[in-house]
Amino acid sequence: MSDLVMDWARQARTGVPEAVLCASKSAAQIEAALAAAEEAGHSLLLTRLAEPLFASLSPATRQRLDYDSLSATAFYGEVPNPAAAIAGVGIVAAGTSDLPVAREAARTLAFCGYASPVIADVGVAGLWRLLDRMSDIAAFRVIIAVAGMEGALFSVLGGLVAAPVIAVPTSVGYGVGAGGTLALHSALGSCAPGVVAVNIDNGFGAAAAAIKLLRAGARS
Amino acid sequence: MSDLVMDWARQARTGVPEAVLCASKSAAQIEAALAAAEEAGHSLLLTRLAEPLFASLSPATRQRLDYDSLSATAFYGEVPNPAAAIAGVGIVAAGTSDLPVAREAARTLAFCGYASPVIADVGVAGLWRLLDRMSDIAAFRVIIAVAGMEGALFSVLGGLVAAPVIAVPTSVGYGVGAGGTLALHSALGSCAPGVVAVNIDNGFGAAAAAIKLLRAGARS
Amino acid sequence: MSDLVMDWARQARTGVPEAVLCASKSAAQIEAALAAAEEAGHSLLLTRLAEPLFASLSPATRQRLDYDSLSATAFYGEVPNPAAAIAGVGIVAAGTSDLPVAREAARTLAFCGYASPVIADVGVAGLWRLLDRMSDIAAFRVIIAVAGMEGALFSVLGGLVAAPVIAVPTSVGYGVGAGGTLALHSALGSCAPGVVAVNIDNGFGAAAAAIKLLRAGARS
Amino acid sequence: MSDLVMDWARQARTGVPEAVLCASKSAAQIEAALAAAEEAGHSLLLTRLAEPLFASLSPATRQRLDYDSLSATAFYGEVPNPAAAIAGVGIVAAGTSDLPVAREAARTLAFCGYASPVIADVGVAGLWRLLDRMSDIAAFRVIIAVAGMEGALFSVLGGLVAAPVIAVPTSVGYGVGAGGTLALHSALGSCAPGVVAVNIDNGFGAAAAAIKLLRAGARS
Amino acid sequence: MSDLVMDWARQARTGVPEAVLCASKSAAQIEAALAAAEEAGHSLLLTRLAEPLFASLSPATRQRLDYDSLSATAFYGEVPNPAAAIAGVGIVAAGTSDLPVAREAARTLAFCGYASPVIADVGVAGLWRLLDRMSDIAAFRVIIAVAGMEGALFSVLGGLVAAPVIAVPTSVGYGVGAGGTLALHSALGSCAPGVVAVNIDNGFGAAAAAIKLLRAGARS
Amino acid sequence: MSDLVMDWARQARTGVPEAVLCASKSAAQIEAALAAAEEAGHSLLLTRLAEPLFASLSPATRQRLDYDSLSATAFYGEVPNPAAAIAGVGIVAAGTSDLPVAREAARTLAFCGYASPVIADVGVAGLWRLLDRMSDIAAFRVIIAVAGMEGALFSVLGGLVAAPVIAVPTSVGYGVGAGGTLALHSALGSCAPGVVAVNIDNGFGAAAAAIKLLRAGARS
Amino acid sequence: MSDLVMDWARQARTGVPEAVLCASKSAAQIEAALAAAEEAGHSLLLTRLAEPLFASLSPATRQRLDYDSLSATAFYGEVPNPAAAIAGVGIVAAGTSDLPVAREAARTLAFCGYASPVIADVGVAGLWRLLDRMSDIAAFRVIIAVAGMEGALFSVLGGLVAAPVIAVPTSVGYGVGAGGTLALHSALGSCAPGVVAVNIDNGFGAAAAAIKLLRAGARS
Amino acid sequence: MSDLVMDWARQARTGVPEAVLCASKSAAQIEAALAAAEEAGHSLLLTRLAEPLFASLSPATRQRLDYDSLSATAFYGEVPNPAAAIAGVGIVAAGTSDLPVAREAARTLAFCGYASPVIADVGVAGLWRLLDRMSDIAAFRVIIAVAGMEGALFSVLGGLVAAPVIAVPTSVGYGVGAGGTLALHSALGSCAPGVVAVNIDNGFGAAAAAIKLLRAGARS
Repeated sequence: MSDLVMDWARQARTGVPEAVLCASKSAAQIEAALAAAEEAGHSLLLTRLAEPLFASLSPATRQRLDYDSLSATAFYGEVPNPAAAIAGVGIVAAGTSDLPVAREAARTLAFCGYASPVIADVGVAGLWRLLDRMSDIAAFRVIIAVAGMEGALFSVLGGLVAAPVIAVPTSVGYGVGAGGTLALHSALGSCAPGVVAVNIDNGFGAAAAAIKLLRAGARS
Repeated sequence: MSDLVMDWARQARTGVPEAVLCASKSAAQIEAALAAAEEAGHSLLLTRLAEPLFASLSPATRQRLDYDSLSATAFYGEVPNPAAAIAGVGIVAAGTSDLPVAREAARTLAFCGYASPVIADVGVAGLWRLLDRMSDIAAFRVIIAVAGMEGALFSVLGGLVAAPVIAVPTSVGYGVGAGGTLALHSALGSCAPGVVAVNIDNGFGAAAAAIKLLRAGARS
Repeated sequence: MSDLVMDWARQARTGVPEAVLCASKSAAQIEAALAAAEEAGHSLLLTRLAEPLFASLSPATRQRLDYDSLSATAFYGEVPNPAAAIAGVGIVAAGTSDLPVAREAARTLAFCGYASPVIADVGVAGLWRLLDRMSDIAAFRVIIAVAGMEGALFSVLGGLVAAPVIAVPTSVGYGVGAGGTLALHSALGSCAPGVVAVNIDNGFGAAAAAIKLLRAGARS
Repeated sequence: MSDLVMDWARQARTGVPEAVLCASKSAAQIEAALAAAEEAGHSLLLTRLAEPLFASLSPATRQRLDYDSLSATAFYGEVPNPAAAIAGVGIVAAGTSDLPVAREAARTLAFCGYASPVIADVGVAGLWRLLDRMSDIAAFRVIIAVAGMEGALFSVLGGLVAAPVIAVPTSVGYGVGAGGTLALHSALGSCAPGVVAVNIDNGFGAAAAAIKLLRAGARS
Repeated sequence: MSDLVMDWARQARTGVPEAVLCASKSAAQIEAALAAAEEAGHSLLLTRLAEPLFASLSPATRQRLDYDSLSATAFYGEVPNPAAAIAGVGIVAAGTSDLPVAREAARTLAFCGYASPVIADVGVAGLWRLLDRMSDIAAFRVIIAVAGMEGALFSVLGGLVAAPVIAVPTSVGYGVGAGGTLALHSALGSCAPGVVAVNIDNGFGAAAAAIKLLRAGARS
Repeated sequence: MSDLVMDWARQARTGVPEAVLCASKSAAQIEAALAAAEEAGHSLLLTRLAEPLFASLSPATRQRLDYDSLSATAFYGEVPNPAAAIAGVGIVAAGTSDLPVAREAARTLAFCGYASPVIADVGVAGLWRLLDRMSDIAAFRVIIAVAGMEGALFSVLGGLVAAPVIAVPTSVGYGVGAGGTLALHSALGSCAPGVVAVNIDNGFGAAAAAIKLLRAGARS
Repeated sequence: MSDLVMDWARQARTGVPEAVLCASKSAAQIEAALAAAEEAGHSLLLTRLAEPLFASLSPATRQRLDYDSLSATAFYGEVPNPAAAIAGVGIVAAGTSDLPVAREAARTLAFCGYASPVIADVGVAGLWRLLDRMSDIAAFRVIIAVAGMEGALFSVLGGLVAAPVIAVPTSVGYGVGAGGTLALHSALGSCAPGVVAVNIDNGFGAAAAAIKLLRAGARS
Repeated sequence: MSDLVMDWARQARTGVPEAVLCASKSAAQIEAALAAAEEAGHSLLLTRLAEPLFASLSPATRQRLDYDSLSATAFYGEVPNPAAAIAGVGIVAAGTSDLPVAREAARTLAFCGYASPVIADVGVAGLWRLLDRMSDIAAFRVIIAVAGMEGALFSVLGGLVAAPVIAVPTSVGYGVGAGGTLALHSALGSCAPGVVAVNIDNGFGAAAAAIKLLRAGARS
């Protein structure tokens, strides 16, 4: 535990809370982070906590976590009341395979007190599915767009809306689309100005950016 | 010239005529190919004949060529009468920067006796531009789609039309889009089934495929 | 299930039916898609349904599917009578390791009412194997060629036949050939005009393109 | 000119005006776009108009453009009064070699009526240079960070400020840093949440995102 | 065993002892190396000896090894007394996920008689964590810096200290940061002069370089 | 000149003479190598001596060189009498654009006293061109095959002949074939056993390997 | 079995026998190949037959195979008497981790009647190990060199011997050396002329090339 | 000039002086840096100042610089007396094409008061050239090794000497060796422990590391 230096002041400093990316950590390291949170009296968000890793935590720990297996996220401690969540962010996902990443963004936003409705299965292969939902989508102040494969959704959406679009490429795909690089490059190389990107599968980062962005608006 | 083995029977065998890709050839090698065509009494299509290379040919040769600088193509010999051109192929180009490649396809088709109207500047950043032209586009039996950058046009088009879409990625773009790999991968990784791809900037190949395809239809 | 938006009109609009790529979906998501198909009274094609995933479906579901393990595809609902299948497409596979992908194409074609004889094990390392079968191959109106490793089959075939060749590179290979990129690039960089490519291992996409192509011929 | 379809409604629809990326266009195509702007009574922003291309425009055209060679941008027509520019965006550049890209962002913002002070030469190899300027930087509502080479600036800045950071990787660098991919990946792979990225050298895109973002704040 | 040629003279010749990289070896090959060490009366360092491979060794062998599972290293035979370890090297690790690699370096140094305190969890996303420890870090004569993801630590550290910085990129990360190439390139492309790099996850190599370097100082 | 250490004994030691790769050398460095050859009384082969670099040499030097511009090679000093050249090697080139590399191999062989007839323009897009020449090709003891683009020639040839095939991929091609990596990988990933490869455009290396190989045969 | 077309004439035509690469084949496909061999009265070489796949064959089949687990190869049918093996080929392996690939080459040679002593653990990190064995190595007419990681062995060996060197890069390594591309490129980019390469881990191909090469010598 | 923030304290802080990498700067920016140096009374090292850029500086500026065209470096102001240079560093270069980079390192060392003899043309294709010089090389306390192509020199040297080896890969090479990535990876993936690497062509960085390293020794 002596190796662990939690950055509890991050939320005050940058607007985004400390979180623990569990993917390359041991159960012991995760338990240590939770103990530190308990000692400091802080809530803590855990991401990339895959089911086998979650199952390897102690029963006592598991019981104290609000775990969501689709997004592989967990909440420790007090979390803002959803009824009082701040509106403004919307999440648009191309396919059902992109939902784990979309949910990671939504859970991160919820942990910070923001609501984020998810509009799913609106990939551009059936353009009408997206066009049918445009009036809902146009109402968001910030849009998180989640897509894998060739990521054409990012450009189409970026050309249709006034809101900034935060693109989250996903690793859903095969062949030239495997691993998410194609979707990422489609977001970055988009012919529609105003699209920005985060790392592949980084729903957490997209949520963090959306929060900073809404707060920037509120600071004026 | 002894190194040169022209494949004059190719058109009979495969439906696509012999053509000379001039990019990595010397002026002498191109003159030799034209001499062989003259001797055999064949027409000949020259592609990737950039202006400096064209200018390095003998004046006599230049005069006998029907040269188009935008597409860097030239016709030698008799070419089918445009008034009698076979309809069915349409070319859709995302931006004005994609026109050289679109024109290479159109010129190849013209050399073989096919008409191919070009619908340009319908990139998806302004989706209405494409939707406005859909009734024209839907009338084509085969569509050649030409786009660079993130190539989102391929997926959007593929999801809207019944005709097969032959995607020609172009090397137009910068950063992650430089060189055309992104547009190529977008075509291949498209979520819209029925999109096929040729090599980057390969307008000639797309035309060849379109011709084979129309002939396949005619063989039934 | 509310996240699922099936595109039942796709077949009417584009000639290719809605299908479910199962690879990155959960058993629950697949069951939901089948329930939607049942409710809508539609047949449904499932692809990339690997055996472990198939085994994780409910026994009732499994019984209602016509499952083929080699191609990892399943049919739900009514499928056209093979006896009345439309001819014209032929599938040529380089090696026995390429058969799963060749079969995915054949099964997709069968689901849509098209016959597609498979000619296998005709890789160019033993050129006579291919030349022996050329009279059969030359009779097809559209050819789907399936090959991994260095994909030399695409160029050899493209130079011999009048029919359009839809190349499906496979991920069969090792070292520089691993993952299918080499075979894909061989198809795209082919010196034989008229070869078009789909994504690596994308037998479904090749079948979709072949169908669009035959229908284009029929529209004249 | 018939190939040109200007998207004059883009500004109303998305908050970002139509602009012409000149890099892969001919002088004739650029003159045509300017003629269209004149006819429509619109201003027009030209980007990636390198000096040789600018010099190839007609003298009359050149005289009507407000050209800036460092950023390779030009303004045509009426531009907002700088004295009335909207504040909120700040640009932070790692080195003097990054200034062309930083200036492209600043010029785009100026064309749209936004002020954007540039703080330059604050790369992290001399961390004190950045720390000395932090009080100025912390006052911005949105930060555009511009850096090439290893792009460590993005992570350091992202960890220090509450404002969203739009990272613009530049192609400044050599060896493993050549072309800007390293700086791009450093932005995307940053351990500091809330950093978003645009394409390499895309100062225009960063400005467009910053504008959308400030407008999102104003819509609340 | 006849295939095995141990280089026992390496330590005398180059200052770094023979070691066995176990990752791609069989249990039998490892036992043979240990038998050779026993016969020659040498100690032996084993690296990349993952737990399953360690478990596959004979009980007798396992008992004779000083095994550390976090770093996957083992010592065979006599090892220098830690109480007499030579000071001068310090190890700085960005995150807790980088500790296995940091520990491989520390264990290699200990095997050779050098002390190497580890300062962990000082990634630049919370810059104050690093700045708080700078007085300790500045006292080291040689610094081994261990970081994954975007590796911004290397540049920040390189700009702050007089000691040479040996960067060990780790394979910790995802998306563009997966596999460690991004962190490696950040070290190599660093704007801070005096940073040198070893291969990804190569804690052993960094320790070997640090030893050679301290010995170079001692030779003057 | 003191920096230059010519390896005159290489021919005796390895069968292949010292040669100077001129591409990244200055005119002064090349003149120094020739002076060293003169002093030592040796002949010298110069490769990659492009015309502008050749033109920058002193007139006296140019006069003493037997220069061939197509292959960018030059001979200095005595060269074996072509009339007495040793037979056994044949060179097969796919297209006329591959001739510079084929000629580099032929010139290197001539410099060492070997004859090497070139059979050109037998790419597999017109398979009959290759099959027509097979009786000539089958007579060679060693075959150097030269091809760019997708390099299908290597596999077709490798499957037809008993002789070893040394593949020389060329950088002729565009899009996915640009730079020669595709042709190189096609040679390495070939399904025809017995094909070996040298570096892209390395006609010299192929000739060196062919010489070693013929000498190996002669040593029995 | 109808999909299987064995090329029994390959040995007569090219000097290298038909072999079955088992890696991507099913147990049923392998059994079918063996049945075809039995029916034709031919021996058969199986490569890349990993232990789990071997174990999945029927007991009767397993009993009829001469299986070697280190190289994952199996012989079916009559094999030449080792006592009468033809000499001339030597195999040099850099490390013990490269032995599986070295053994694949040796087993292929044995199947065809050639002897091939293996000299192992002579990597260049301890150059004396290689120099100590040079008199043995210099006696071979053809050398197969097997190395992973940075593959420096290929260049050192190529500069020392008169025999042609067939380089087999192996996938042994990590970080930048993972997968074998680095070792492959070191062989191809070698500064020592006369080194040729086969695909990564392709011991079979190296043996096939060595056989063709020795036969070429014997044809003079 | 207001954009320029020189880090004059760097030498005191890190042991390596401020230097200006000129490659992507304008003549005006370079003149501004020199003016700042003059004002501050500091010497200044300019690197990557190619001849055309040097020629574009004002005559007065050119006269005040000690310019070396081979290394493209220039000294401004007082430089340590070579007669009093500190010994300990040696530079070993594989070929004459690597001399510009070797010289950049030597010039940087000279600017800082260190001597660095260069031993050139000792590539491993003629191993005796290197072995002949080993007694000189073994006397250095720190070795900077400079090599392009396959960079085998790094491993051979690393296995022979006790001194730390700082590898500088160069961009000398073609095909798979083009750009220097192969040489870089050979250094990083070396089987000889104690080799560290800097960026491609980064002679300045190697010199900076060597200085830090010698100073580390002196601090004991």
